[in-house]
Amino acid sequence: MPDWNQIAICGVGLIGGSIGMAQLGAIDCGTTDPETGVAMAELIVVATPVELIVDRVRELRRFARADALITDAGSTKRAIVDGLDAADSDDRRFVGSHPLAGGHRSGVEASDGDLFVGRRTILTPTERTPPAALDRLCQFWQSLGSITCEMSAAEHDAVVAGVSHVPHLIAAVLAGTTPADCLTWAASGWADSTRIAAGDPDLWREIVRQNADEIDRALDRFGDGFETLRRSIRERDWNRLTELLIEGKRRRDALGS
Amino acid sequence: MPDWNQIAICGVGLIGGSIGMAQLGAIDCGTTDPETGVAMAELIVVATPVELIVDRVRELRRFARADALITDAGSTKRAIVDGLDAADSDDRRFVGSHPLAGGHRSGVEASDGDLFVGRRTILTPTERTPPAALDRLCQFWQSLGSITCEMSAAEHDAVVAGVSHVPHLIAAVLAGTTPADCLTWAASGWADSTRIAAGDPDLWREIVRQNADEIDRALDRFGDGFETLRRSIRERDWNRLTELLIEGKRRRDALGS
Repeated sequence: MPDWNQIAICGVGLIGGSIGMAQLGAIDCGTTDPETGVAMAELIVVATPVELIVDRVRELRRFARADALITDAGSTKRAIVDGLDAADSDDRRFVGSHPLAGGHRSGVEASDGDLFVGRRTILTPTERTPPAALDRLCQFWQSLGSITCEMSAAEHDAVVAGVSHVPHLIAAVLAGTTPADCLTWAASGWADSTRIAAGDPDLWREIVRQNADEIDRALDRFGDGFETLRRSIRERDWNRLTELLIEGKRRRDALGS
Repeated sequence: MPDWNQIAICGVGLIGGSIGMAQLGAIDCGTTDPETGVAMAELIVVATPVELIVDRVRELRRFARADALITDAGSTKRAIVDGLDAADSDDRRFVGSHPLAGGHRSGVEASDGDLFVGRRTILTPTERTPPAALDRLCQFWQSLGSITCEMSAAEHDAVVAGVSHVPHLIAAVLAGTTPADCLTWAASGWADSTRIAAGDPDLWREIVRQNADEIDRALDRFGDGFETLRRSIRERDWNRLTELLIEGKRRRDALGS
């Protein structure tokens, strides 16, 4: 593991706070002045809401060491990686990251030094990312207990649209369309399937805004399945319904608990 | 609490097994002969899949004591209560029950003597249910740690369509329409929102079949919300999306974790 003398975390919510707790001892002071905050840092992690990341990275790069490594923790990648590539084409210090951790919790008070243990972090290097920078970034996330992997920003956005963004939106619709006077009778099934709907609406609107095209495609797939469901029930086509239930169980069982 | 000398449980899956474990000591032998099984029982609990309950109650009533109390544990109530009322109008020994416990687990191997503790059980008496029978049944479920409440079978079916049956179906569609090659990246959000899709497809098909009308109505509500979601994303109407996310969070937060 590289010997990080100084890591700067910009944005201390759930992710930033959890990195701080996992690195406790190494990270020991705070500042609201960006220049002071990043001047000596070898690694800068921008863990703000997604819509602020591009501007924040651009700002911090002005004060960062020439050999600093800069990453983020945003739930979208294409808008961020493209935004930084286009704006500053000869600066290769930024490499995108997305730790798949968090879910319905938010805020520094939910921080947990073990948040990343056993969870995957997707890194999204571009063709121009120096291999050494990618290696160092992998080692950073691995030092927090995370399992790292790499894909393009576009591939990342398509994948997380399906496994994270659409489930969030469906949970919100499911929770929001359950009549309030029935909630007394909601048990563990309803609680599980709507849990992520408790996430911060402002954070999630911006995630959806940045990944709207991929989310639209993933919602097409869900919409087709929903139409099949509706038709099977309206037409009392119990064989079709059984197939749908079996397919859902097959995919769910593949994941484990 | 009444002094039950003998309770007969017909159908030993998750619910029947869990009642047995909670009542351990009182229940100590098994038989496949219905006459032997229920002849002395003061309480008979039919905990089979829903489509078998009406026939099983009719069969067991022939062998049951004149003062026996008979109940079930089915996830639907109208088809069962109506079926037993119509068939045998002067027999008032049956009172419907639905313990809101279980979810994605099934089978006797998942049994748990604490399964009902703190969970609600809905009882569905009819106008002709003797008050003393209802009292005794309440006391039975309360002795397992459950919180009892009463409503009509029709009201029950409308409520559980919204808080249990539709969430199950949506979880199945969500799981089934997630591309298999994305499942590697599924994290706790996807796991939570699809957990109930692991339920038994045959059990669930029969539940849906018995409550198809109410489920159709609840799916209309979900479908309206889903259409609003799709339109807000296609039209980039972020205010509308924010309202939808806020409404989902409000309902979810009302329940707690």
